[in-house]
Amino acid sequence: MSPRSTAEQAERTRDEIVRRASELASIGGLEALSFGQLAKEVQLSKAGVAGAFGSKEALQLSILGRAVEVFREQVWDPAAGVPAGRARLLALCDNWFRYLERCPFPGGCLITTASVEWDARSGPIREAVVAAQRRWLKVLSAEAEVAIRARELPRRLDPDQVAFEIAGIGWSLNQAIQLFGDASGPDRARRAVERTLSAR
Amino acid sequence: MSPRSTAEQAERTRDEIVRRASELASIGGLEALSFGQLAKEVQLSKAGVAGAFGSKEALQLSILGRAVEVFREQVWDPAAGVPAGRARLLALCDNWFRYLERCPFPGGCLITTASVEWDARSGPIREAVVAAQRRWLKVLSAEAEVAIRARELPRRLDPDQVAFEIAGIGWSLNQAIQLFGDASGPDRARRAVERTLSAR
Repeated sequence: MSPRSTAEQAERTRDEIVRRASELASIGGLEALSFGQLAKEVQLSKAGVAGAFGSKEALQLSILGRAVEVFREQVWDPAAGVPAGRARLLALCDNWFRYLERCPFPGGCLITTASVEWDARSGPIREAVVAAQRRWLKVLSAEAEVAIRARELPRRLDPDQVAFEIAGIGWSLNQAIQLFGDASGPDRARRAVERTLSAR
Repeated sequence: MSPRSTAEQAERTRDEIVRRASELASIGGLEALSFGQLAKEVQLSKAGVAGAFGSKEALQLSILGRAVEVFREQVWDPAAGVPAGRARLLALCDNWFRYLERCPFPGGCLITTASVEWDARSGPIREAVVAAQRRWLKVLSAEAEVAIRARELPRRLDPDQVAFEIAGIGWSLNQAIQLFGDASGPDRARRAVERTLSAR
């Protein structure tokens, strides 16, 4: 093979490993992954899988990177064309709740899983999780701020408080879906957002 | 030793193992625990630790049982003397937020950790987690219902919706504390509860 096709092949192999590893991590967490188990899953040698990443931590960071990408594609990107402010804030919430409801990962949102798995540890994975969650809160807060300035939302609202509350609604919805299989969760979540945005 | 003191000694040993294992599980999860690691931690033989529980699952269930007990002691029990309804609902929230803030487990609330760790798996541990979380939601919902009936809260409120939203506030506070080390978390959480109880 030419050098280019070898590089392309290596890239495809990495993608395939990350895709399968993401599915497994959404169920069992990032730390339980092993090169040996993954090798069996993707029918490669253990050395081949390990060699594609160098270290387990590098693999874990690749998985998180993919999880953030999927989240962005399903939650942020479809809201980009919606007018900034209240409408976009509601679109972001709707997209998020739909993502949680029909999650592309079999064990549910991988960022949620990693947030709790890594919240009492230190190192690059925790830092990546913190960065991802902070970014999401900032997006919610910024959109709320635009809406408040445009008088689309009550002026007494505090954008960071709105983001804190909406984040909680997402967590509660995640629990309703993943733990209770509660079909009323998405409606409750949408109602909670309306209440948060209209509260005194 | 007499049979009684042998039984007492065995009970003390089990308690000590569960106490230490709870601390470790709050950081690394329930599934990462091993009898070998625990044996070193409590300076017993691996066979001694394994023999005290019989199986890893039995140990994990004991840990969860202890976590539920600690939660009850710190959150429910101190609210028992508060008048039922709005006052007790607020006391439960306050106690809960204080528990999350000054958590007796080094890695934060063990039930929270176990909820996410087990939400994509099946078996007795998941069932124990689901039962614990359902019970907590029911306590919140029941207290909200008493308050609504007594007209201490607006009649338009739906008790299950209130419980869903308060659960989310707890999740968001847990994230603020564990992931962001955000000192404003507890105030935000208390403000969110007030808003939830007064919202349209």
